[in-house]
Amino acid sequence: MSELKALSYVDGDWLEANREKEDIINPYSRKTIGTSYLASTEDIEHALTVAQQIKKQLVGMSALERSTLLKKAATLLEDQKEYFAKLISLELGKPLKNTRDEVSRSIETLVQSAEEANRLIGETIPGHVSSRGQGAMAMTFKVPVGVVLAITPFNAPLNLICHKIGPAFAAGNAIILKPAPQTSAVATAFVKLLLEAGFPEKSVQLIIGGVDAGRQLVTDERTNLVSFTGGAVGGEHISNSAGLKKVLLELGGNGATIVHHDADIEKAASLCAKTGFSNSGQSCISVQRIYVHKEILETFTETLKAKVDQLIVGDPLSSESDIGCMVDEQAAKRVEVWIQEAEKMGASIISGGQRNGASVRPTILLNPPKQAKVVCEEVFGPVVSILPYEDLNEAIKEANDSRYGLQAGIFTSQLDVALHAAKELETGGVIINGTSNFRLDHWPYGGIKRSGIGREGPRFAIEEMTETKMVVLPEGI
Amino acid sequence: MSELKALSYVDGDWLEANREKEDIINPYSRKTIGTSYLASTEDIEHALTVAQQIKKQLVGMSALERSTLLKKAATLLEDQKEYFAKLISLELGKPLKNTRDEVSRSIETLVQSAEEANRLIGETIPGHVSSRGQGAMAMTFKVPVGVVLAITPFNAPLNLICHKIGPAFAAGNAIILKPAPQTSAVATAFVKLLLEAGFPEKSVQLIIGGVDAGRQLVTDERTNLVSFTGGAVGGEHISNSAGLKKVLLELGGNGATIVHHDADIEKAASLCAKTGFSNSGQSCISVQRIYVHKEILETFTETLKAKVDQLIVGDPLSSESDIGCMVDEQAAKRVEVWIQEAEKMGASIISGGQRNGASVRPTILLNPPKQAKVVCEEVFGPVVSILPYEDLNEAIKEANDSRYGLQAGIFTSQLDVALHAAKELETGGVIINGTSNFRLDHWPYGGIKRSGIGREGPRFAIEEMTETKMVVLPEGI
Amino acid sequence: MSELKALSYVDGDWLEANREKEDIINPYSRKTIGTSYLASTEDIEHALTVAQQIKKQLVGMSALERSTLLKKAATLLEDQKEYFAKLISLELGKPLKNTRDEVSRSIETLVQSAEEANRLIGETIPGHVSSRGQGAMAMTFKVPVGVVLAITPFNAPLNLICHKIGPAFAAGNAIILKPAPQTSAVATAFVKLLLEAGFPEKSVQLIIGGVDAGRQLVTDERTNLVSFTGGAVGGEHISNSAGLKKVLLELGGNGATIVHHDADIEKAASLCAKTGFSNSGQSCISVQRIYVHKEILETFTETLKAKVDQLIVGDPLSSESDIGCMVDEQAAKRVEVWIQEAEKMGASIISGGQRNGASVRPTILLNPPKQAKVVCEEVFGPVVSILPYEDLNEAIKEANDSRYGLQAGIFTSQLDVALHAAKELETGGVIINGTSNFRLDHWPYGGIKRSGIGREGPRFAIEEMTETKMVVLPEGI
Amino acid sequence: MSELKALSYVDGDWLEANREKEDIINPYSRKTIGTSYLASTEDIEHALTVAQQIKKQLVGMSALERSTLLKKAATLLEDQKEYFAKLISLELGKPLKNTRDEVSRSIETLVQSAEEANRLIGETIPGHVSSRGQGAMAMTFKVPVGVVLAITPFNAPLNLICHKIGPAFAAGNAIILKPAPQTSAVATAFVKLLLEAGFPEKSVQLIIGGVDAGRQLVTDERTNLVSFTGGAVGGEHISNSAGLKKVLLELGGNGATIVHHDADIEKAASLCAKTGFSNSGQSCISVQRIYVHKEILETFTETLKAKVDQLIVGDPLSSESDIGCMVDEQAAKRVEVWIQEAEKMGASIISGGQRNGASVRPTILLNPPKQAKVVCEEVFGPVVSILPYEDLNEAIKEANDSRYGLQAGIFTSQLDVALHAAKELETGGVIINGTSNFRLDHWPYGGIKRSGIGREGPRFAIEEMTETKMVVLPEGI
Repeated sequence: MSELKALSYVDGDWLEANREKEDIINPYSRKTIGTSYLASTEDIEHALTVAQQIKKQLVGMSALERSTLLKKAATLLEDQKEYFAKLISLELGKPLKNTRDEVSRSIETLVQSAEEANRLIGETIPGHVSSRGQGAMAMTFKVPVGVVLAITPFNAPLNLICHKIGPAFAAGNAIILKPAPQTSAVATAFVKLLLEAGFPEKSVQLIIGGVDAGRQLVTDERTNLVSFTGGAVGGEHISNSAGLKKVLLELGGNGATIVHHDADIEKAASLCAKTGFSNSGQSCISVQRIYVHKEILETFTETLKAKVDQLIVGDPLSSESDIGCMVDEQAAKRVEVWIQEAEKMGASIISGGQRNGASVRPTILLNPPKQAKVVCEEVFGPVVSILPYEDLNEAIKEANDSRYGLQAGIFTSQLDVALHAAKELETGGVIINGTSNFRLDHWPYGGIKRSGIGREGPRFAIEEMTETKMVVLPEGI
Repeated sequence: MSELKALSYVDGDWLEANREKEDIINPYSRKTIGTSYLASTEDIEHALTVAQQIKKQLVGMSALERSTLLKKAATLLEDQKEYFAKLISLELGKPLKNTRDEVSRSIETLVQSAEEANRLIGETIPGHVSSRGQGAMAMTFKVPVGVVLAITPFNAPLNLICHKIGPAFAAGNAIILKPAPQTSAVATAFVKLLLEAGFPEKSVQLIIGGVDAGRQLVTDERTNLVSFTGGAVGGEHISNSAGLKKVLLELGGNGATIVHHDADIEKAASLCAKTGFSNSGQSCISVQRIYVHKEILETFTETLKAKVDQLIVGDPLSSESDIGCMVDEQAAKRVEVWIQEAEKMGASIISGGQRNGASVRPTILLNPPKQAKVVCEEVFGPVVSILPYEDLNEAIKEANDSRYGLQAGIFTSQLDVALHAAKELETGGVIINGTSNFRLDHWPYGGIKRSGIGREGPRFAIEEMTETKMVVLPEGI
Repeated sequence: MSELKALSYVDGDWLEANREKEDIINPYSRKTIGTSYLASTEDIEHALTVAQQIKKQLVGMSALERSTLLKKAATLLEDQKEYFAKLISLELGKPLKNTRDEVSRSIETLVQSAEEANRLIGETIPGHVSSRGQGAMAMTFKVPVGVVLAITPFNAPLNLICHKIGPAFAAGNAIILKPAPQTSAVATAFVKLLLEAGFPEKSVQLIIGGVDAGRQLVTDERTNLVSFTGGAVGGEHISNSAGLKKVLLELGGNGATIVHHDADIEKAASLCAKTGFSNSGQSCISVQRIYVHKEILETFTETLKAKVDQLIVGDPLSSESDIGCMVDEQAAKRVEVWIQEAEKMGASIISGGQRNGASVRPTILLNPPKQAKVVCEEVFGPVVSILPYEDLNEAIKEANDSRYGLQAGIFTSQLDVALHAAKELETGGVIINGTSNFRLDHWPYGGIKRSGIGREGPRFAIEEMTETKMVVLPEGI
Repeated sequence: MSELKALSYVDGDWLEANREKEDIINPYSRKTIGTSYLASTEDIEHALTVAQQIKKQLVGMSALERSTLLKKAATLLEDQKEYFAKLISLELGKPLKNTRDEVSRSIETLVQSAEEANRLIGETIPGHVSSRGQGAMAMTFKVPVGVVLAITPFNAPLNLICHKIGPAFAAGNAIILKPAPQTSAVATAFVKLLLEAGFPEKSVQLIIGGVDAGRQLVTDERTNLVSFTGGAVGGEHISNSAGLKKVLLELGGNGATIVHHDADIEKAASLCAKTGFSNSGQSCISVQRIYVHKEILETFTETLKAKVDQLIVGDPLSSESDIGCMVDEQAAKRVEVWIQEAEKMGASIISGGQRNGASVRPTILLNPPKQAKVVCEEVFGPVVSILPYEDLNEAIKEANDSRYGLQAGIFTSQLDVALHAAKELETGGVIINGTSNFRLDHWPYGGIKRSGIGREGPRFAIEEMTETKMVVLPEGI
């Protein structure tokens, strides 16, 4: 892969000359692999102006055209699947096994968005339900909010862009995309693909930049909706500075999964090993806390350890690697410190614990106290904690004792246990006989408490990214 | 009516002793008619704690029970219709003609909420739409957000409480109500009615207080959703301090209505006279800007003037009065100043213009410039401006040239004109052959731009006041 | 209760003079308790003409009015609950325990219908999904089909009328009701109640008559939809003679329930005892075939027998009776013959088997062959058969080996067994840890195969009882 | 184009040997262009058996696969667009202008069906709406009905197959297709295309045959739903012989269009000329009756005549031809007789009237009496009648005075006239400022009275082609 370039794209131009530069560094090799050119304050102002202007024109584009363009983008992505998989692995350190899967999911997200463009259906609501409405009729129409600001994270740098651009464009919005700085090159390549697919040249603005760029975009009145995926602190800042605009927030979690005494242990361990460490645990729903019934603690722990020990940590660009590295060394060091803290607080390290550059060996902790950061905060790293319990309700209570509420899992073979847990676990999603880390892109995804506001998935995001416009005929139809 | 009392209600107790007091003053007679007892900081803290506790218990209440209690409340309100109408007139200065209508609407709002409690339907979404989901099944359920904080305005002090408490309770939430200080006695009486209807004694907390009380409630993590109706500035403050909670904002407007040359002038004038001044124009959708085609300017102006001159301004408690007074003298003085400003800027006063205490005579201005506050800001008073136009698209452009976007109206007999205006007017609602000021309580109500976020009306509010909880069976059903 | 009278009601008149008469006989006491006056061919012709005329006028009635009238009918029924319970018991022989429940359910059915009247919501569907539809917009509205012909059975003579009249009227239709001849007095009393509630005097026509009356009504072009609950043979005749009208058929079943080895036997037996014999098994979803795993066969059989033996067979008008009698002696004799047939074919009688007049003692058969009528046909009597199995899939296969497909139940504590059975059982409904005989009136009820076409329950019936009318604006909105 | 062949396809085999043969004749040239091989009674029996078997297997196919196959079929059709257009023109005599459009629409119908496969969403319905349902939960799932029998007409021989096969397959059904004998070769080619696209070899059975074949299929219990498009008489026979299966009927019409005095005459005449004669008027919604206000009668008639006179009648295979010929000479002769009858009854022939072989010159009649077949029956030929009126309500009454009720149009510039007509016209669809002959394939299409039962369009057809399966958890989730 030749030298990477990350560029802002504003008003139909790629902005390189005279922009501030930053190296793009492969987190695994620590080598410089390209250059990011940052958007200036003026670029951002320009982008806001263009987006504001273009939104009126996009209203004139038919659903069929929008749908066709999104399908075209999906087809191009299918053609360039391996290229994008490698690009993500290179820039992020996520292993090919995961990035190939991510590109496949991105394609589905685009196709689903394309199909939803054809389903912007409103309602006709008779007035004669009310004593004041005899004969009256209201009709509602789904219209675009205008300008959608998409702020996306590094951990699934392609699919999470698709989850915002797909529905936003399907609904007829102009888009400003500010991706995570760590994966700017992926975003740049994807915007190029969209243009290649035939997206109107000014329909998307891409801003390469950091927190300041984000703030400028979020606080400006010309953006009508902010769709953000990232940490809870960032989400709260956005919410508190966005003023009178809609905000859609997909924030963190500290995914709990309960393994009850009657569970299929082999299956539970196998899925925990797989979904607790993929992309080095850098997923909002990654399994982080495994509540294991005491009766099966030993068996489960051994089974899990055996599976985790088999995970291959290596070059993200190797098809063999299960685990690559974290997004940067700083992140890996933070995880290392948290592991050490947990150990000091009484946890045993069952497996892993070592850091090598930006790579952290998949780590299983046994019995960290609930005050340990690996339990009560979001680890966002390859660390799971086994937390034994005796009584199911106690496990559920512990699982719920979190500021987050994204997804949770429960393994059990009993119907009543499954239903009870499904009801009592306070999260946006509960997976029965699966871990917290299971998501299909067309399902409603999102959490409660500090895990966010609103639900993502093309159909649900479109609901947020449109306004209901009502037209009333007081004398009816 | 005996001396009024406005009291906070927290944890099952009415709080009177040792609370700070304020006089309740009838804005029309300027006499003291009762006393408000303000909630202390500790009371608010207490309310938050109780609400947080009770929300879990309310989940156990069936939809049938919630529905039954709301219907019971509606029945009690039906029985006490005249009492509540007089109470609102007395505390707010809104004439009986309007308050009787408001109570009727409140009853419908409660009944509609009750019926929606029985329709909390989720989805089953197959997984096999995705290559990763063969056999999987997701089920979604509508669960209450938890604690709904309702902050309500003075202008429709009963119905707008019903629009928040109705759907919030129907959906299974605990409620904290902070009404406008100016109509605290109405809120107090209504919470009493709810308890009489059988609402669980701790399901609702009532906080009598002002902006500080609001801030304490909004910023606290124990409230899960803020539903606010009020001004745009207040709405923006709330949005910017609510952190990671849902926010539903119904803010202001400066209602435009276009009267095209082919309109039924008699009808247009009649509806403008009726809906531009009811409750002294203190409604978010009150007709404020009337764009009139030049061909019919003279006829329309005369017809409107004739109708407006017939409006009876008088004691709100008289069944004869069309107009009572504004919420307080200060508000009336502000309106007076705005009228004077417009006159200085070149507008002619066609009718009205005088203030007497808190009463402002229904005022028609001709041709104020667009910079005049009566045009570009929300008047929230009995003032309409006639703004002549020659070209329809120019009128639409002017109507859209506003920071608000709540509702608009157009009078025309031509199909293509009606449809064109419906499409081009940038508001949440467009009324064809009606003014901006038409709302049925079961329709989706709300605006774009600075007019708010989200839609109200029991069915739509419930959508906001519930979370989508997903339960996944990865191996399907 | 004074002498019963069953009269047709046509064009606002109750038809008694000069009509053919039939005795109304209490099936338990075999005494004559009143008189049915049958509609003549001319009466039916008259009813069709009136219904045809009135349907246009009913379109002008608002949803609010229809809803209010249905609620009023529910309130009156609440007031006359005990009267109707006794009346049904008297005319049908259904014990008070069941008829009180039926009246309660009828009230809910009416209220739910009333609430659905307020939800006749259509769609707005943009045209620009199609290359030929740029700018076009379609709006759909739910309009009544016109005249709904309701043909109702004797077994739940009040609630099943409510299930047809409720949604039909809620949707704005004119109604012709032809109840089962055996419960004509119940129908007469209920139509009186509707008129008392304020139903327009010509909105409902009641025809007292038998199969010929039904045929005349079904084949006439002036009825737009036939909603029939009854036997499969009758349903097929209707379907094959209704011509170009909609047909909604709720037919029979031979309810299977599986009790797996891991089931809660006490609960399973208890529910089978309760729901296999209520109203002497005269319910479409009554438990008829109980597939019991061999491991628990003995325990289950003993437990069931103990419970069934405790059922009190007696005077339907006694509050103590669990079982009254069948609809007439002829029906009881048929059941007796079927029991004898099963015995001859090898079944053991575990409990019951005796007939006394129209009463048949609750009967448990063990191991009848699948060719026995009690297994392969619809018993519609107080007879359940225990059919042992070894392999779950074999039990499911047997359960599915039926011309019917209405509802089925499965008792198990295992999640995967429950889900597997839910998926594989070929019926309209599957109850997990309940018997085939569980229905809530607001749920979609109905079967596949010879169990019918369409789903009942107010919301679902309304869907059938309305037409989608589309209005197109080719140049859009 | 080489010699055409129409073959049945059963159990994966194309049936040619030893089958009864019929010539395929080009209706325009009257030349034999190929051979139809008719299915025998045994072939049909075989097809029923296979369909019955395969339906179980198809349930195992994921929505994604079904969707992908339908999209693949659409792509292949896109590739073979010109081939199919010519094939239809050749076999049916429909001009290329129309058949190219038909193929484009067929592609959209397939794509829309494909997208709907991904939206088979059910509901979760809480039980606690009912006093008997506290804690209970019902989940509904959309499952295929099983075997869909599609009986399709000759007039849009490809798109109307797509309208049945598309949704049937999307929903997971096995399909038996019996196309009109006149367009058997088109059906044969299309089934080949489906197999080429990858449809499972036994998922579709194609039966070449006539009325007897249809009857055998309709009356057999192994078909679960009949979807028929054709004449009202045929529809009624099907309805009356289908027994306990679902029936979806799209029957005829005698399309009325009103041209009011304030209409855009040029536009109205232009659209009537275009949509009254396309495919020689062989469309259910073809404009047949034009009610013209007397004030504009002369102008409209002249304008229409001028436009119609310009229509080119010629070889269907020429890109220049606006009109080709009717399906066969017999049909043309019938139309000729009807024209003559109208003339004898007093109508004037304004244009056309001549027949040449199977071609009938586009014909405008003025003032035929309402008893004339061209007015009261379905012409299904290139004949429109101009019927003058003075009063709008009279025109609406005349338009409604028909046994059919499919679609109608109204031309007017006034809003109130448009809305009044939309409300009063008794048809499934009303087009405002368009003729009766406007359909987008994703809209709900269908009529009332003798125009049919149910609505077509992929989303709506799927609703009919699936059953609601309910799974109940009495103790909830």
